[in-house]
Amino acid sequence: MILGIDPGLENTGWAVTNYELRINNYELKASGVILTTTKQKSAERLVRIYNELEEITKKYKVTEMAIETLFFAKNAKSAIKVSEAIGVIKLVGVKNGLEVAEYTPLQVKMALVGYGRAEKEQVETMVRSELGQEEPITPSHASDAVAVALTHGFTRKD
Amino acid sequence: MILGIDPGLENTGWAVTNYELRINNYELKASGVILTTTKQKSAERLVRIYNELEEITKKYKVTEMAIETLFFAKNAKSAIKVSEAIGVIKLVGVKNGLEVAEYTPLQVKMALVGYGRAEKEQVETMVRSELGQEEPITPSHASDAVAVALTHGFTRKD
Repeated sequence: MILGIDPGLENTGWAVTNYELRINNYELKASGVILTTTKQKSAERLVRIYNELEEITKKYKVTEMAIETLFFAKNAKSAIKVSEAIGVIKLVGVKNGLEVAEYTPLQVKMALVGYGRAEKEQVETMVRSELGQEEPITPSHASDAVAVALTHGFTRKD
Repeated sequence: MILGIDPGLENTGWAVTNYELRINNYELKASGVILTTTKQKSAERLVRIYNELEEITKKYKVTEMAIETLFFAKNAKSAIKVSEAIGVIKLVGVKNGLEVAEYTPLQVKMALVGYGRAEKEQVETMVRSELGQEEPITPSHASDAVAVALTHGFTRKD
């Protein structure tokens, strides 16, 4: 079971997918977004992200974690916040015995669309196509989390 | 008991100080540096930082945590790494019931030297003076951790 994560301090998208070898198909088990508010101290927001992801990991018997990481930072302040969340997310993974892999936005686009400058909408279309689903996955952070889970599924060696 | 932390993925300096009201004096209980190597995956390095700080917190009955944070990022890539460590450090704090405070390098310099552009050496001299210690605290990351612990002691409201 793969847990894909689109990290953020305010919105951390997550999605659990598995892979049915018989039918060569990925199936979405569950997805969602962990929301925190600016009313909370950042340390408390990080604890919330940690606890929710640990619960998801146990509930869905996750074995592998795929995180979408920062390629580069346009805005240093927001990069710092997202990176603090990424640190905590990696910790959830290793502390729960998961294999932890990181993929840049470029790697996700290449894996799903085959083109590094693909638009967000193209990635979203490929996510739905791969899952055989007509309705879009909402919110978009959850769809992004599916994309990184699929990237991990496509690119891992097994 | 205050745990001061100078965070980093390769070197996380730490120092435990207490405050003796009777003699108006800060005392250094213990200090050191948590080292990780580039041979380890970043997620494993973060777990090491988490586990060592949790052990220190319990061993010295720490109640307050003071972290030196990034003021701005000169180098985005190193800022991302340090921020991942800071996220994990904050998590140790809240998960162990500590009060977590963050101070920028500017705040540390202001609190210890009274001058925001103070040199690293001036801060180090003030650290030794405050502890009534002639020998420098080594390595420098541990001394920096004392500086942020003292900053917290000087500026907290109690």
